[in-house]
Amino acid sequence: MAKPELRPYVSATPGFAAGTSSPRAFLEACLDRIEGLEPQLGAFAQLNIPASRAAADAAGKRWRDGTPLSAIDGMPVGIKDVIETEDMPTEQGSPLFAGYNGGRDSASVHALREAGAVILGKTVTVEFAAAQPRGTRNPLDLARTPGGSSSGSGAAVGAGMAPVAMGTQVAGSILRPGSFCGCYAYKPSLGGINRGGAYDALSQSVHGPLAASLEDAWMTTRAISSRAGGDPGFAGVMGPMALPAPTKPKRLAVLETEGWALASDEAKAALEGAVARLAAQGVAVMHRRTSATVEKAEIAIAGALALGSNISTWEWRWPWNIYARRDRSKLSDIVLGRLTQAEAWTQGDYLAMIEERARHRVTWAALAGDCDAAITLSAIGCAPVGIEATGNPVFVAGGSLLGVPSLSMPMLEEQSLPLGLQIIGFQQQDAAMFAIAGWVRDQLM
Amino acid sequence: MAKPELRPYVSATPGFAAGTSSPRAFLEACLDRIEGLEPQLGAFAQLNIPASRAAADAAGKRWRDGTPLSAIDGMPVGIKDVIETEDMPTEQGSPLFAGYNGGRDSASVHALREAGAVILGKTVTVEFAAAQPRGTRNPLDLARTPGGSSSGSGAAVGAGMAPVAMGTQVAGSILRPGSFCGCYAYKPSLGGINRGGAYDALSQSVHGPLAASLEDAWMTTRAISSRAGGDPGFAGVMGPMALPAPTKPKRLAVLETEGWALASDEAKAALEGAVARLAAQGVAVMHRRTSATVEKAEIAIAGALALGSNISTWEWRWPWNIYARRDRSKLSDIVLGRLTQAEAWTQGDYLAMIEERARHRVTWAALAGDCDAAITLSAIGCAPVGIEATGNPVFVAGGSLLGVPSLSMPMLEEQSLPLGLQIIGFQQQDAAMFAIAGWVRDQLM
Repeated sequence: MAKPELRPYVSATPGFAAGTSSPRAFLEACLDRIEGLEPQLGAFAQLNIPASRAAADAAGKRWRDGTPLSAIDGMPVGIKDVIETEDMPTEQGSPLFAGYNGGRDSASVHALREAGAVILGKTVTVEFAAAQPRGTRNPLDLARTPGGSSSGSGAAVGAGMAPVAMGTQVAGSILRPGSFCGCYAYKPSLGGINRGGAYDALSQSVHGPLAASLEDAWMTTRAISSRAGGDPGFAGVMGPMALPAPTKPKRLAVLETEGWALASDEAKAALEGAVARLAAQGVAVMHRRTSATVEKAEIAIAGALALGSNISTWEWRWPWNIYARRDRSKLSDIVLGRLTQAEAWTQGDYLAMIEERARHRVTWAALAGDCDAAITLSAIGCAPVGIEATGNPVFVAGGSLLGVPSLSMPMLEEQSLPLGLQIIGFQQQDAAMFAIAGWVRDQLM
Repeated sequence: MAKPELRPYVSATPGFAAGTSSPRAFLEACLDRIEGLEPQLGAFAQLNIPASRAAADAAGKRWRDGTPLSAIDGMPVGIKDVIETEDMPTEQGSPLFAGYNGGRDSASVHALREAGAVILGKTVTVEFAAAQPRGTRNPLDLARTPGGSSSGSGAAVGAGMAPVAMGTQVAGSILRPGSFCGCYAYKPSLGGINRGGAYDALSQSVHGPLAASLEDAWMTTRAISSRAGGDPGFAGVMGPMALPAPTKPKRLAVLETEGWALASDEAKAALEGAVARLAAQGVAVMHRRTSATVEKAEIAIAGALALGSNISTWEWRWPWNIYARRDRSKLSDIVLGRLTQAEAWTQGDYLAMIEERARHRVTWAALAGDCDAAITLSAIGCAPVGIEATGNPVFVAGGSLLGVPSLSMPMLEEQSLPLGLQIIGFQQQDAAMFAIAGWVRDQLM
């Protein structure tokens, strides 16, 4: 199929005040795309089109009156279906929650509404944002997975159905679909967006946007975090409301991660080509072969996928145990297998895991003294063929384990399909990471 | 009214295996007490008597068969009405949630059922465990408050209606009702009991038992934490399943807290008398006048009540903002006032608060090098007259701010009414605190 165009929002808003365009017109273009592609893609679990049109019209009036509620007033947003919305069910990709509506907006959805955003619909998630995929297809090739667990959010943004869709990530669930669907994908620092009213109570889980532009990703995040704050105990993502000014890094650490051995030659060459272009601009490049600090950081994240997955498995014990008590037949074998594993572990086993994670976080933090950010691939290659699995998250699991900000930008290709370039920052230094990402994007575009 | 007797459970269980008593007989004695006193006290929001009788009978069979599920198999437990139970509504002390049932057991309730405990009913909470009291009275004097926010849990245990009732504490909501109602009350270290399925998503909030004995408090906590773990990112309370062996402390820090100026002379004399008895056994006593480390710790907690309250106010912004959108008329003026305050603060304001709290936690941790635990009053005096307010939590707010374990034991009196003796420990060293508490109890009983 033809490569769909991304549909950035913030860059479209100048026309709204001038009257040459409107949020309603923007929405209708999204709806046209949905009408055309949704039957094939399966990106949405729910749509609320009448409410979206009314909200877009209200936003249009505000733009014309010169009183927009925020930079994203009128922006259509998809909400991953593990995050509660008052006007739509939250089914968590599970038949156990078919039609379930807790009747409340989550903290982030409430903040989005306060900012004037249009809550377009719920995007398909794999079961509990953790297990069985639910049939969503990649907008660039219907035979391929869009990635997961934020499958619908990646497909919707990649297909131009919405400029932004919210996702959640505990291992690779935001950045992987971003990489596979050719859009921007941002996982904030731990606690960066208030998760109140979502079903992802895991110690590594973070909410963040999949977006059509770097500006949309940042400004949506700030529109939420400035209103709803972070998780309890975290102030949330801070910094300017607009995209931080592009900043050339002095030094970048190029990471292999445990994914290097699995990445295709074409993917590795794509990264090396991008790095060479940045180096040609005078950025010093560090590597595990040239820096002991980078080597230590590589070792720290070498087991990130397994360790993070095991930590999450224990943390899923509740509520999966009450779900199993209610109706085991509605849980996938993946969920039941992980629950059995969790019930075999003790508090001491879990304590050893989180203590190991804490040590790796200290190691990573030391890297901040030596470089401005890290750069690597977002995936071992383009989206794999098949929709029964969501691809390998090995390149992005490190950022999740470490609780640091990470970002995938659609700057590379493999097999003529999108492949993300990943930037990884330091704890609670999200704005600094975006400043560097903006510069990197400008060099490579 | 006559002073009601506490009704400890663990010490009653030897008769169950021997056949001289049974969980069902134990339950019926609780139900008799409920029948007699509940109309005056208003401790329960819900009771599920048929299910409790069935659960007690099943436990009785297990004890007779020599196969109890745990040391608390068959123990009747009240559950604070902000913690979800599959078989009863969770109304949060708010008319907005009248009859609401999310249909699931919380992590702790599921763990209690796995341990064989009898989920007797839901205990009255002040509105959202934070605001308007809901009419519960003190079992020792009906004209007085039972304390709050775990008002019903304190009244139920103090009245001998149940050996244990679960509470939640973000400032003083477990220890204060324990002090006022003459029972044991334990707030674990931060993250000590998995809060999944409860409506208290605040960075200081912790679940813990109000209990008829020190053994009941500890063994109930371990029955839960060993099965459900702690909050995500915390292993939860660890240690032996039985009460740790009493351990004589070498040094105790006697704290004044910001409550000293408000405490009655009789209360202060009661504490000093208890401390003198411990000192007579050879325990070295430290004080702000004799130790620079204690003085620093006193300074660290001097503003604990205000700082902790402000932190919580920000963290309540969501969900109180969506509740206000739904129906402001069903929220108390207390809630609406705090919501207005929260909406006036910025992320930066909140960040400054949590950074200050983090500094105080570091100061407190340094005290661990100099003493084994701290000791002080649990309240400025006995329960005050009136049920429109729940009394001053000033003596217990420090432990909440610091995230350390704290415990109130019914060892003192003021005006011939109960007053708690408080023991405060160190982060994640809950078992060590109980070992000392056991020794202190044995000296003072």
